[in-house]
Amino acid sequence: MYLRDIQQKLGGEIIGEVAAPLTGVGTIAAASPVQITFLTNPRYRTELARTGAGAVIVGARDRDVTGIPRLVVANPYAYFARVAQLFNPPRVFAGGIHPSAVVHPEARVAASAYVAELVSIGRGAEIGEGVQIGPGGIVGEGVVLGPGTQLAARVTIYGHCHIGERCIIHSGVVIGADGFGFAPDFTATGGEWVKIPQTGRVVIGDDCEIGANTTIDRGAIEDTVIGNDVKLDNQVQIGHNCVVGDHTVIAGCAGIAGSTRVGRRVMIGGAAGLVGHIEICDDVIVSAMTLVGKSITEPGTYTSGMPMMKHADWLKNAVHLRRLDALADKVKNKGGST
Amino acid sequence: MYLRDIQQKLGGEIIGEVAAPLTGVGTIAAASPVQITFLTNPRYRTELARTGAGAVIVGARDRDVTGIPRLVVANPYAYFARVAQLFNPPRVFAGGIHPSAVVHPEARVAASAYVAELVSIGRGAEIGEGVQIGPGGIVGEGVVLGPGTQLAARVTIYGHCHIGERCIIHSGVVIGADGFGFAPDFTATGGEWVKIPQTGRVVIGDDCEIGANTTIDRGAIEDTVIGNDVKLDNQVQIGHNCVVGDHTVIAGCAGIAGSTRVGRRVMIGGAAGLVGHIEICDDVIVSAMTLVGKSITEPGTYTSGMPMMKHADWLKNAVHLRRLDALADKVKNKGGST
Amino acid sequence: MYLRDIQQKLGGEIIGEVAAPLTGVGTIAAASPVQITFLTNPRYRTELARTGAGAVIVGARDRDVTGIPRLVVANPYAYFARVAQLFNPPRVFAGGIHPSAVVHPEARVAASAYVAELVSIGRGAEIGEGVQIGPGGIVGEGVVLGPGTQLAARVTIYGHCHIGERCIIHSGVVIGADGFGFAPDFTATGGEWVKIPQTGRVVIGDDCEIGANTTIDRGAIEDTVIGNDVKLDNQVQIGHNCVVGDHTVIAGCAGIAGSTRVGRRVMIGGAAGLVGHIEICDDVIVSAMTLVGKSITEPGTYTSGMPMMKHADWLKNAVHLRRLDALADKVKNKGGST
Repeated sequence: MYLRDIQQKLGGEIIGEVAAPLTGVGTIAAASPVQITFLTNPRYRTELARTGAGAVIVGARDRDVTGIPRLVVANPYAYFARVAQLFNPPRVFAGGIHPSAVVHPEARVAASAYVAELVSIGRGAEIGEGVQIGPGGIVGEGVVLGPGTQLAARVTIYGHCHIGERCIIHSGVVIGADGFGFAPDFTATGGEWVKIPQTGRVVIGDDCEIGANTTIDRGAIEDTVIGNDVKLDNQVQIGHNCVVGDHTVIAGCAGIAGSTRVGRRVMIGGAAGLVGHIEICDDVIVSAMTLVGKSITEPGTYTSGMPMMKHADWLKNAVHLRRLDALADKVKNKGGST
Repeated sequence: MYLRDIQQKLGGEIIGEVAAPLTGVGTIAAASPVQITFLTNPRYRTELARTGAGAVIVGARDRDVTGIPRLVVANPYAYFARVAQLFNPPRVFAGGIHPSAVVHPEARVAASAYVAELVSIGRGAEIGEGVQIGPGGIVGEGVVLGPGTQLAARVTIYGHCHIGERCIIHSGVVIGADGFGFAPDFTATGGEWVKIPQTGRVVIGDDCEIGANTTIDRGAIEDTVIGNDVKLDNQVQIGHNCVVGDHTVIAGCAGIAGSTRVGRRVMIGGAAGLVGHIEICDDVIVSAMTLVGKSITEPGTYTSGMPMMKHADWLKNAVHLRRLDALADKVKNKGGST
Repeated sequence: MYLRDIQQKLGGEIIGEVAAPLTGVGTIAAASPVQITFLTNPRYRTELARTGAGAVIVGARDRDVTGIPRLVVANPYAYFARVAQLFNPPRVFAGGIHPSAVVHPEARVAASAYVAELVSIGRGAEIGEGVQIGPGGIVGEGVVLGPGTQLAARVTIYGHCHIGERCIIHSGVVIGADGFGFAPDFTATGGEWVKIPQTGRVVIGDDCEIGANTTIDRGAIEDTVIGNDVKLDNQVQIGHNCVVGDHTVIAGCAGIAGSTRVGRRVMIGGAAGLVGHIEICDDVIVSAMTLVGKSITEPGTYTSGMPMMKHADWLKNAVHLRRLDALADKVKNKGGST
């Protein structure tokens, strides 16, 4: 692929042209003459001077920062991602159902859909055109998988959940398990937790990606809803009745308790936790490992957590955390006596 | 179903009666005339005046708060949960083994147990009456599943673990994997971690529910033990040799390190962490994302964690956390000089 | 097994000999006369006096602390682990492929490898001598599993990943899912996250153990690399392009964001979180639930997090955390005015 081939598909301005066709993408540090790299961070300009890459994608301000063949584009990083997609198109298998798959006779599987070995598809499921279901997948009764959606190996979708178009769902994901809903019925002499049947669904929009071993619970009565272009990393947990807005991204190990509503274009850091029944407005950033204990009504970045210290320092400092109130009192009182 | 049908099964006092049979449950805000709702929180009394529900479940104090047909009961929320169960009985498949399942000839499967497609059951396993094993389940050698227990799709139970009666285990759960036990054997010139064989089991009581992708490790020598009526949410991790008491509930993403003992009726918040080798007494509540670093011997609520702030504020405040000891010293010394 | 049989295999000094052959290992508190126990912590010397064990493993300093038959060794805990292995050798199935497994004709499976029921093995995979693949395992195209490696039930290895020799991988593990890589392409009128194809692999060394439901993402362009003798507990998350050094151990629920490099012999506590693009040097210990927000260049123990308090105390203290900067200012100013 020459720069002109890329430009024809994705646009941008060409300066120079590679001698030999490109075969892939690479990092500035490791790319070879048949690979194309990209520059976004000005700190890497120096490193770019030493790159072995055959070509580079740059922004307008870096138009003349190098002499090697280049594409000048509005958003080098996004352009690079699309170029990488050109070189690495997703693996798509031709339509067909492996003989070891167990497909209910009343399921509807599009002719162009691929169903791998050892898959189970329940009654009334609707599998759209071009869908790819990897080995060991479990698609429950009445599930809808929109056209072009890909399930990696060993994904579980419980009954009646809807997944939109062109989603990518990774191995070990569980969508639609019962939410955590129990009513306490205890007296002085004993009792039990009474299960509240979870009769809602999970409804996921288009163009979402869901990382390995992430779980999204079905709603208690109403649905759990994930918007369009939402990206969830691995081991994320979304409780029942949550609503997650379009373009929101959630990093690994984060958890959202039940009935919380997250806005659009929100970015939630790794292992952050959101309590239940709150609302996060659009365009919020939550730092890694932050506990969001109440609603956020104003865009911006929010953080909790104590900074890391050497353990010996932590021991000396942490003891005062238990006495902050007394310390503040002492300061206040001295203020009065001065 | 009329109110009198519900009352016949679950008790309570009827005031009025619905005109047309009820078909399900709903929220105060969204219920229709053929649905029944419930009121527990006094804040929703106003909303109840506008509900479209055909009937409502209320407590004695709210007996006359509405004119619509109603059931007056001791515990409206628990009663509602049981009514919801009446309308949504768990799906139970008739006994039988799908031809694609691989069942060891020396396993014993009760006639009324249902074994779905693509399930594996090992030698000597005992599958009780009415057990439901969803597609892709793996039941190891010598595992015992008590009567009425339901495994959703794709659950793994390692060999020799015991699950009680009427448990519900969700997709992706792994019960009985090896605990994390290694002995360090290092010298100045190298070494290795020596694996300690994990020869205990996991023993789970009756009426437990275990959420998607939760893991419970087998004991090192003795067993990991989960009591009765214990409810674990998704992605909970229970280390080897832990003991969890009856009626305890643990929210999503919480983790308990090895050999810790948790009492009865304990409530552990989401993403909380308990270190190993400690004891938590009965009737403790642990807040979300709290690190429990030592034993708790007195009932009550326990919390750690720093409150969330705007990131700019956090930056200004957090720097002082590294110097709290010095700050406290300064306050103390000034105390002397005043 | 007599003490002399153990000594023959593992070395050490014998004092006394058991009357009847030993059949297993036990704890000091619970061992029977046909079991052997061990003493490392001096605090348990008293308890040892009451043990029912038939023999004990002790260090040189505890040579004469008891009169029961004993093995005196350099590292009693590691020795005990090896004795426990003698009594509990890993279950190894004879080579063969279950007829329900789906093995691509172009995969190479060693004659001594065991492939259980309902397993899928992709084109070009290489399964080494003595490998054990449990039921429901998914081994992608071109995957290499080194000799002696054991996959428990229901493990997923994505295409082209390499696993070394003698590794143990537990149920629900997902190795090689796509890393979390998206380029934002938004304007005032909308936009999308553009997926960056994840074309690297996961490469895991020898003698590693990986706990249930742990996830390790494949690299974006280069590989994610796990060294030798690395032990990961359950529900650990390792992001794309991370490098983890030999002998490092990571406890349950910990997460490492992308492109972070962790040294050798590092110990990471449960639910700790490491942000991306940092480096942790050799011989670091990270406490449980600590957020590591920047590189660590010096060996030692590092901690963050606020100590747990009764909730009422927490409420009083936490309020001051939002005003620490003001409090410090007040203290400083009084310093000036005194």
